[in-house]
Amino acid sequence: METPVANAVDTDRLREDIETNGRFGATESPDDAPGHGRTVRTGSEPNRRARDRLVAQLEAAGCEITVDAVGNVAGRWTPASADPDAAPVAAGSHLDSVPEGGIFDGPLGVYAALESVRAMREAGVAPERPVEVVSFTEEEGATFADGLLGSSVAVGERAVEDALALTDADGRSLAVALDDIGYRGEGRLDAARWNAWLELHVEQHTELETAGVSAGVVGDITGITHCAVEVSGEANHAGSTPMAGRSDALAAASEVVLDVEAAARELSGAAGGAGSDDGAEGNEPTDSAAVGTAGSLAVAPNATNVVPGRVELGIDIRSTTYASMESLVGTVESSLARLEAERGVETTLVREFDVEPTPMASRCQEALRAAGARAGIDTLDLHSDAAHDSMYVARVTDAGMLFAPSRDGFSHTPKEWTDWADCAAATRVLAEALADLAGA
Amino acid sequence: METPVANAVDTDRLREDIETNGRFGATESPDDAPGHGRTVRTGSEPNRRARDRLVAQLEAAGCEITVDAVGNVAGRWTPASADPDAAPVAAGSHLDSVPEGGIFDGPLGVYAALESVRAMREAGVAPERPVEVVSFTEEEGATFADGLLGSSVAVGERAVEDALALTDADGRSLAVALDDIGYRGEGRLDAARWNAWLELHVEQHTELETAGVSAGVVGDITGITHCAVEVSGEANHAGSTPMAGRSDALAAASEVVLDVEAAARELSGAAGGAGSDDGAEGNEPTDSAAVGTAGSLAVAPNATNVVPGRVELGIDIRSTTYASMESLVGTVESSLARLEAERGVETTLVREFDVEPTPMASRCQEALRAAGARAGIDTLDLHSDAAHDSMYVARVTDAGMLFAPSRDGFSHTPKEWTDWADCAAATRVLAEALADLAGA
Repeated sequence: METPVANAVDTDRLREDIETNGRFGATESPDDAPGHGRTVRTGSEPNRRARDRLVAQLEAAGCEITVDAVGNVAGRWTPASADPDAAPVAAGSHLDSVPEGGIFDGPLGVYAALESVRAMREAGVAPERPVEVVSFTEEEGATFADGLLGSSVAVGERAVEDALALTDADGRSLAVALDDIGYRGEGRLDAARWNAWLELHVEQHTELETAGVSAGVVGDITGITHCAVEVSGEANHAGSTPMAGRSDALAAASEVVLDVEAAARELSGAAGGAGSDDGAEGNEPTDSAAVGTAGSLAVAPNATNVVPGRVELGIDIRSTTYASMESLVGTVESSLARLEAERGVETTLVREFDVEPTPMASRCQEALRAAGARAGIDTLDLHSDAAHDSMYVARVTDAGMLFAPSRDGFSHTPKEWTDWADCAAATRVLAEALADLAGA
Repeated sequence: METPVANAVDTDRLREDIETNGRFGATESPDDAPGHGRTVRTGSEPNRRARDRLVAQLEAAGCEITVDAVGNVAGRWTPASADPDAAPVAAGSHLDSVPEGGIFDGPLGVYAALESVRAMREAGVAPERPVEVVSFTEEEGATFADGLLGSSVAVGERAVEDALALTDADGRSLAVALDDIGYRGEGRLDAARWNAWLELHVEQHTELETAGVSAGVVGDITGITHCAVEVSGEANHAGSTPMAGRSDALAAASEVVLDVEAAARELSGAAGGAGSDDGAEGNEPTDSAAVGTAGSLAVAPNATNVVPGRVELGIDIRSTTYASMESLVGTVESSLARLEAERGVETTLVREFDVEPTPMASRCQEALRAAGARAGIDTLDLHSDAAHDSMYVARVTDAGMLFAPSRDGFSHTPKEWTDWADCAAATRVLAEALADLAGA
């Protein structure tokens, strides 16, 4: 089968893009970091330089640039074969990073989309739809927001003026920050006008590495709820307070930790004890993707000789099924109600973060799998456990995600690494799928 | 019954002593502190002034002063009635404080002992034994040691040279610090040569206040064990690590917290649920003084979205019976062994602090109770939950402790307060008991 688009993907050019982009905001690499560290906060000088270079490369590839009011950048390629009024297909990711992050998380998806446009041009294919290369603002949320800022505006989830009013730790607004770097444009990038959207991203886990596969097709992005639980008992002298007279916040919180674990084990079919192979016998897993984790816990006053008076507990609940998430939150709620009655503690639960599971569009998944098959590149179906801009985009159009392997699963660290051959293979799948969706 | 010694105790004189002493190292009092704050670290200028005044007052009361190599001060009164070679009876406490402590913790016991000598002299009684008023160095342990420094030397538990080599946070040795304030004497105050020892101290809890009683006779000082427990599992992404593949250090530690609580409830007869009045039914308390508390807990990495990899847990175990303490430590050990087998965690337990329960001598307790009865001052039998110099002294001679009420149980804070009438009443009991033990 001829795959001229995939064949036109240039590994060296892609590598040059990612390495050059990785030098903006470069941090000193620890000895054990095979890649490079970078810190690219929204509105910073490294962010300006990264954006300037992307714009220059997009223009060199024949793309028409638009920058919206929150700094989302789009480069639109409208080949002669395309109807300029047809809904475009779009692909991209983000250029910002967490502090001390890696060079692949975000930039790979942006530059792979650009490389796909170049490859389509060089292969001489004739898409019926325009193609847009997109870089969303503040995906990581390290500076102005909780993350997914640009995409939340692009799907109408957040108003432009609300986004611009967000401030960083120094009180500088996003509006001022974007003005400072020359990337406060006009209007709003509207993801709803796209015919389809694809995002290539590093996996951040080890499924692809373990399987020896270069490209993962995401079936769904798991939903995530974070419960902030506070348990208040009575702090007291550990020596002079008899056991019967206590309201020990840590003992109560310990019951919550174990209740969450037990419920998630039960739901996912892992009941019977962690580490035991025969644990699942007799338990019908109803949702193998369900997990519940009490990941953070802080005690006050936290002195060995004082009965704990207050505990703050952070609980992470995820699944690809929202009903499972609701069920696990219900476990926490009933656990707290029981402890209030049995232990005389007071409790609060704030669901401070709650994102429903997001299935990727079947036609996008199929386009990615078919692209891999045509190009002779194996793909693996998997879930995404992390949040991505594609979660928002999927609310307004057909969205798909493709993962490239992460060595040892590292991300958000200078240790983040994806072999160049894997970067190129995943980009070939992306380019083929984009060409397909664009009607080339 | 005539109680000339008790009658000779002068409330105003005692108050003047404690208030004057309280001005050395005085700190600004918060509005809600009825007393006064003070910071008197060993070797500081306030410590020198407090010692100088004590020495002057002891000399004024006809006492002969000795200062030993670690700065323990003793003022010996040898009345004409006494055999100078007879084993003396001794009483006292300490003059140092915690940072931002109160004015009663320590000084009350020292000046009540001095007032007892004055009262005996003025009452014209004729003791057969000399009487010593003692101020131990560094009881609080805020500067050079963990506490009980002077008494540990006086009973031979710690060598003089080891004590002198201890350094403060600035690296200054105790030897230099005592030289600086002129209180590095010679030899070693030897508690073993005392016939008996009594210490008056503030209660630091509310039993006396609740009962409306001015003097508490301590039956025993509870033993304390601190267990530093570390539980190591495997930190992992909370989204991508299935429930069955986890080794969650916080879930494991939560079991330890609950195991300790359950065992201490069982042992103390409080089993059946905290806060429920009927909980003790069917459970025979074997040691009502036993308590076990997981008071401190730290999680790493302590992020809501990461399966906890490591937990440090601080467990406080106390009882008046060492076997009970051993039993509760055994609970922790078997809990950890079970969790290693069931959860694949690794655990360590360090018993970083372990002091056996210290019973006070019956004859000292009886002398105190009888003194209260003679003077018409009610006494209450109680335990001490805190450590005191008397714990060490009890290893080498007959020791007794007397408590005065602490308003609202406050100590180690400027809020510490004992009414002057209570100070005087407890001092009357002390003086009568000392006179009795001295053969007056």
